[in-house]
Amino acid sequence: MRSSIEVIDAAALHPLLDRRAVLEVVRAALIAHARGQVQSPLPGQLLFPQAHGDCHIKFCAATGAARFIVKVATGFYENPRRGLPVNNGLVAIFDAATGAPSVIFAEEGWLTAWRTAAATALAAQALAPPAISAIGLIGTGLQASLATEWLPETLGAHELIVHGRNPDKAEQLAARVRSRGGQARRARDVAEVLAAANVVVTATCSERPLFSVQQVSRGTHLVALGADGPGKQELPHGLFAQASVVATDDHEQCLRFGELGTAVREGAYPEDRAVLLGHLLSGEVRVGRGDQDITIADLTGIAAEDLAIAELFARRLQC
Amino acid sequence: MRSSIEVIDAAALHPLLDRRAVLEVVRAALIAHARGQVQSPLPGQLLFPQAHGDCHIKFCAATGAARFIVKVATGFYENPRRGLPVNNGLVAIFDAATGAPSVIFAEEGWLTAWRTAAATALAAQALAPPAISAIGLIGTGLQASLATEWLPETLGAHELIVHGRNPDKAEQLAARVRSRGGQARRARDVAEVLAAANVVVTATCSERPLFSVQQVSRGTHLVALGADGPGKQELPHGLFAQASVVATDDHEQCLRFGELGTAVREGAYPEDRAVLLGHLLSGEVRVGRGDQDITIADLTGIAAEDLAIAELFARRLQC
Repeated sequence: MRSSIEVIDAAALHPLLDRRAVLEVVRAALIAHARGQVQSPLPGQLLFPQAHGDCHIKFCAATGAARFIVKVATGFYENPRRGLPVNNGLVAIFDAATGAPSVIFAEEGWLTAWRTAAATALAAQALAPPAISAIGLIGTGLQASLATEWLPETLGAHELIVHGRNPDKAEQLAARVRSRGGQARRARDVAEVLAAANVVVTATCSERPLFSVQQVSRGTHLVALGADGPGKQELPHGLFAQASVVATDDHEQCLRFGELGTAVREGAYPEDRAVLLGHLLSGEVRVGRGDQDITIADLTGIAAEDLAIAELFARRLQC
Repeated sequence: MRSSIEVIDAAALHPLLDRRAVLEVVRAALIAHARGQVQSPLPGQLLFPQAHGDCHIKFCAATGAARFIVKVATGFYENPRRGLPVNNGLVAIFDAATGAPSVIFAEEGWLTAWRTAAATALAAQALAPPAISAIGLIGTGLQASLATEWLPETLGAHELIVHGRNPDKAEQLAARVRSRGGQARRARDVAEVLAAANVVVTATCSERPLFSVQQVSRGTHLVALGADGPGKQELPHGLFAQASVVATDDHEQCLRFGELGTAVREGAYPEDRAVLLGHLLSGEVRVGRGDQDITIADLTGIAAEDLAIAELFARRLQC
């Protein structure tokens, strides 16, 4: 049926992916968000406990932008048993002068995955120690897999050390990196990752800490992606008391849905001490990061990133 | 471009409109919402003060339902100068077992308008005085126009008395009712409406009371649709102190966005005394409504209604 709304499928987006361009617009979005130039109220959420699924609704308008977006991202964790991917969703783009919907990106979660990968790479870079020994990855899902491609964009080439609950998946991910010419190996356990790497990305759906405070070496920068709702946790909350810098993509979201919230509720970190990743990226906030400092970036994903990547693809598609 | 998501335009929805069926599903939705069988967190909102526009995002899942929805409704009040309607929007339908989007209703605000008209007709009936003298309408926009078609479905045929800021529009609306065989006339002012009618629907975008407490006759039932955000107000807050029953479609929404919130903030009404329209419709709450009682229904529009009407049209379209 002919429609006034154009639907762009994920298959049309993949050939247009340009990591440098995405990093640029996500960086600008994090900075604009930190400066308060973006209208992005707290996201909505629907939960489907019986289906083991959840749905996050984010919406965003930016000062002076010609378009605004509403994004729906779903994660249904039994889907693989049906031969379906866990993640799905869409981004609806609207004209900010008339309110008319113009384009639906039936992106199946890919725009969300790419902007998250970009934010991960930017957060890893923003607080990386002066000398990177190796990059650790805990988790073997889509975000961990994307991290192996996106982290080198900001950090340069380093050995990747991968751990996951499923050793086969971890080995497969390391093998994929090696097949692209990178250096990668599977770690037997989390301790091995933390002993070898001083930049560590956690990208799991864990509901309890993946390691203890004592296992984290001085000088490590942790980027936590997994917690995006109440009950999820990857980092031991006590680690916040050891951290010289904690950055978030959005304080309020991270207090509600992220690692920061757990740490604050447990009394391990004051509510008002974290810095915004956008302020680090713009240089408006500068932190002296010594090579013995433990630092944390807590990312819950912000709507400004969704708007930025949707705008980028809409421009490329001239829609 | 072929897509996994089907887009259904508003033009395909109009021929399928069946007011009796919509009334039935909206009634069931109000009851289910009142019973807590519906997951509908507080809606999201984006504001576009420069364009004089706003965007409301509602999302809803119901226990046991096969689908869930995310609805975006926009109102951009300068659109008529461009030859465009004020309202637009879309409803996205998702599979509640997998999270996959399946259908977009590019409904241009019509599903919202129809479910609001149905809720208005149900709210008018739920607390109507024993003998209806006439039905008053304040406002001449889309919702007032729809009310002239939907109110007779629940209240039966009565004279309609219409007032709007623009006398020509009020006359046109009354003439349209007469051309359909109904009885209708334009009122010179609000006082004339309130003197003649004892069921009065307010459907304006007013930011101040449309009349004073003293102008409201004993025995009047008021249904207020207009207020759907901070700053909007149609009823004098003092009227709540006179009302024997106040019903809302959702207490929390009406406290935040509706007339009830203004009345409570002004100290004219206790926060916890209102009843739910759904409980009145199911008979779970019964109120003795005398012919001298003033009653109020405050409607802000709930996501359960959006889910219900979207499901109805999806079933009719077998999508």
